[in-house]
Amino acid sequence: MVEWKNLDSLASFQALLDSDCVDLAAVMSGDNGADRAKNYSVKMGAGLVYNYAAKEVDEDVIEKLAALAKEAQLVDKYAALYNGEVVNTGEKRLVLHQLTRGQLGEAVTADGVDKRTFYVEQQQKIADFANKVHNGEITNAAGEKFTTVVQIGIGGSDLGPRAMYLALENWAKKNGTFKMDAKFISNVDPDDAAAVLASTDVAHAIFILVSKSGTTLETLTNESFVKDALAKAGLDASKHMIAVTSETSPLAKSDDYLAAFFMDDYIGGRFSSTSAVGGAVLSLAFGPEVFDRFLKGAAEEDALAKNADIRENPALMDAMIGVYERNVLGYPATAVLPYSQALSRFPAHLQQLDMESNGKSVNRFGDPVDYVTGPVIFGEPGTNGQHSFYQLLHQGTDIIPLQFIGFKNSQIGTDVDIQGSTSQQKLCANVAAQIVAFACGKKDENSNKNFEGGRPSSIIIGEQLTPESLGALLAHFENKVMFQGFVWNVNSFDQEGVQLGKVLAKKVLAHETDGALRVFSDLLNI
Amino acid sequence: MVEWKNLDSLASFQALLDSDCVDLAAVMSGDNGADRAKNYSVKMGAGLVYNYAAKEVDEDVIEKLAALAKEAQLVDKYAALYNGEVVNTGEKRLVLHQLTRGQLGEAVTADGVDKRTFYVEQQQKIADFANKVHNGEITNAAGEKFTTVVQIGIGGSDLGPRAMYLALENWAKKNGTFKMDAKFISNVDPDDAAAVLASTDVAHAIFILVSKSGTTLETLTNESFVKDALAKAGLDASKHMIAVTSETSPLAKSDDYLAAFFMDDYIGGRFSSTSAVGGAVLSLAFGPEVFDRFLKGAAEEDALAKNADIRENPALMDAMIGVYERNVLGYPATAVLPYSQALSRFPAHLQQLDMESNGKSVNRFGDPVDYVTGPVIFGEPGTNGQHSFYQLLHQGTDIIPLQFIGFKNSQIGTDVDIQGSTSQQKLCANVAAQIVAFACGKKDENSNKNFEGGRPSSIIIGEQLTPESLGALLAHFENKVMFQGFVWNVNSFDQEGVQLGKVLAKKVLAHETDGALRVFSDLLNI
Repeated sequence: MVEWKNLDSLASFQALLDSDCVDLAAVMSGDNGADRAKNYSVKMGAGLVYNYAAKEVDEDVIEKLAALAKEAQLVDKYAALYNGEVVNTGEKRLVLHQLTRGQLGEAVTADGVDKRTFYVEQQQKIADFANKVHNGEITNAAGEKFTTVVQIGIGGSDLGPRAMYLALENWAKKNGTFKMDAKFISNVDPDDAAAVLASTDVAHAIFILVSKSGTTLETLTNESFVKDALAKAGLDASKHMIAVTSETSPLAKSDDYLAAFFMDDYIGGRFSSTSAVGGAVLSLAFGPEVFDRFLKGAAEEDALAKNADIRENPALMDAMIGVYERNVLGYPATAVLPYSQALSRFPAHLQQLDMESNGKSVNRFGDPVDYVTGPVIFGEPGTNGQHSFYQLLHQGTDIIPLQFIGFKNSQIGTDVDIQGSTSQQKLCANVAAQIVAFACGKKDENSNKNFEGGRPSSIIIGEQLTPESLGALLAHFENKVMFQGFVWNVNSFDQEGVQLGKVLAKKVLAHETDGALRVFSDLLNI
Repeated sequence: MVEWKNLDSLASFQALLDSDCVDLAAVMSGDNGADRAKNYSVKMGAGLVYNYAAKEVDEDVIEKLAALAKEAQLVDKYAALYNGEVVNTGEKRLVLHQLTRGQLGEAVTADGVDKRTFYVEQQQKIADFANKVHNGEITNAAGEKFTTVVQIGIGGSDLGPRAMYLALENWAKKNGTFKMDAKFISNVDPDDAAAVLASTDVAHAIFILVSKSGTTLETLTNESFVKDALAKAGLDASKHMIAVTSETSPLAKSDDYLAAFFMDDYIGGRFSSTSAVGGAVLSLAFGPEVFDRFLKGAAEEDALAKNADIRENPALMDAMIGVYERNVLGYPATAVLPYSQALSRFPAHLQQLDMESNGKSVNRFGDPVDYVTGPVIFGEPGTNGQHSFYQLLHQGTDIIPLQFIGFKNSQIGTDVDIQGSTSQQKLCANVAAQIVAFACGKKDENSNKNFEGGRPSSIIIGEQLTPESLGALLAHFENKVMFQGFVWNVNSFDQEGVQLGKVLAKKVLAHETDGALRVFSDLLNI
């Protein structure tokens, strides 16, 4: 039986507060630095490695972090979660996204069914459907193949699937598994849907409406937008649309859709990339086998997160170092910096995953906490970021911890050799250089060119960005966020903070406002 | 003659530190809130308005901010800048980006020429070239029209022009001024160039190589990548490439290019969207008349920034409120939230503009400062962000000031009426609602559903995102960043913090490393 306690009530946290600060520039120099770079790493799934040599930790801090992880019962809480305890206490729901990729513990029954069986069934239904679209058994009314899939969804129904699609698009093209283009409509800004539709051959497009409740304003509005466009093109919308929704939603059994695939209340939007929400679009775009390989990579990572030894549990190590940086060292933000153009939208997905999960001020019992919780997350791919905001990261007045990601090989494999090295080698040389530049700095008599160093980073390294390594990468961060939520004793699985804006927007549209809201509504011509 | 002094040496800053905190939830409620929403605004260029009603300021704080702006001689420093003083002291350079859009003060001579004349000449050369491409006087070797322009550049040669292109793409299509697709290659990751080229009809593409020095590693590498692809397609690269560079660079007079257009050392990359760096690609994509309208909007805004009265100087007001939030209230980050899908990459541009300019720890004389300088900048378009990281903004433990942007009208104009309102009305209703939700919050007995409020935001409101309003928007933030740099007494126009990484990356590629850098190089297979 686990006990849910606030971070500052734990003895091991008090011990952590008394840690001696690590002089990162010093420990990362010379042979000691080389030893750290070799040894401060944890194996992840799918051949990835999490390296934390350039973090402000040493054996003493790691021991204290391990003690905190143990006292906070983090691995036990993970077990409670995957064994079907009601961990999302606010909404009184189970939390089952890991079950979409594997059975980690006991069978979990909810709504009268075995949930692992339910998720696998949905995957199989999607695979069958996708195969039929690809082999021409399911076509448009004219009997022609669909060539484009367009996902209509927002938040978790958009950011994760979009980031995963972009991550694998070129890999799939290179490896002969690319089936059809995917596009995404998310924003209620009418220019979003209009621009996507203008660049889409709608007669050969299949649209996926993604809304768990079937009531998301943006998504239903954009569905109408699409139906309008289909009608204007003389097409029967019900032959071009499928739904991903919960079984109890109004969309589930509607004749408006060619097919419906199901998710449920036990998977939050930001954790839904491995559910039908990501499954439908990724299976249509790349084939179900690719989606299956993506799930396998995530499952490997989920299994590693069960390990009680922090040195063999990469998500736990990453989570605890993050807590140390946030609650002891006081850093306000973390930058996610993938050296891979294919991961261009991965930081935006992690931004949602992390900030929506752990941006909370009350604990799971509703009591205000007296410590900081989730940080700001932002990032762009390297080397682009180097020519942008890295100036502040290197020489700004705040220290921002960094999360690098790098792969030895590119996805497409086309390259040029300039000045004795390939572009891929230049890319990798840059990320290696940045780690050491941030950690060690460089003294210069011209203080404008002086680098203090002492700026912490970690790096995840892989052979190549593949379906498996992408799955492992995604699950790593999901599990990191989960562990941090446990440490902070917040409910990482609800999002009450998004509600008030929705309520007030409805009032504006109903012209039921006064005061400042009335004035702003007038200023915006509503 | 202006005097450059540290912020904490100014008497008016000490007075500001003694301000009473404004209870934002209280002052934004009821009639008082309505009055603030009406009155706390400043007219910007091109019909935009900067509204700061929901910031934590009142008459007392504004008076103190005005006094600080005066003591820090901010408007005088701006005059010194546009009259040609060497404001970029580190690199001993003038700072002349505003001169690309108008003559704000005295004639400025450098390198033996009048610089306003020089910039206008480049604009005219670009306009002539673009017109010839559009009317078929300049074609590929087969005499066929070019249909796509591809910009090769990184950092300021990529983020700004790309954000501006996306901002006007749909507007231009709607208004009949769209000439050709623009694409961008920036990252040294070979998959970036390979993917762009794979989706481009290179036989009908014109490439713009953008590098001021002609030595940027990523850009020259990607140029070779493109030349390889052109050669493989049997095309003569010199008939498909133009250069934007400085007159003294090796690219300036090379036969490898159809034409060369010039910038100079007085315009930093992040301030170069209105120079030839943005001018070539935007004039080719949308026609020179559109680029000219964009410059006019920026010029209007630049003129407003000369105003000594903070209440009539939007960039100055925005800058000073930001300083108050950073140095008095202690907030670490600012979110940029445009309610416009067309501005999807505008936050990434501002992230570079702000963080690279003011992420500094030493003042312009090289002495360490004892106060915080530039904040972290991040953001995504609304309403997308609402379904992502807004949870933390509403209920997280840190307060993050917000910069909203909204327009009354969409660009394309296609819309649907659902539940009594259009998508554009829903978009605007949401941003209005968010301002009040963040400021006022809402008490709830369930603390999980409780909103403290007191979270500050400002909003820039316009009729529509057009070339003029985009120019004004861009110039507003450039001038805000400039004023803040003056307050913090840093040099906002150099970027020494990006150098160390470059030096170390070269060492890695030359295999001249030891210690941790050697180990990371091995781990990444270099």
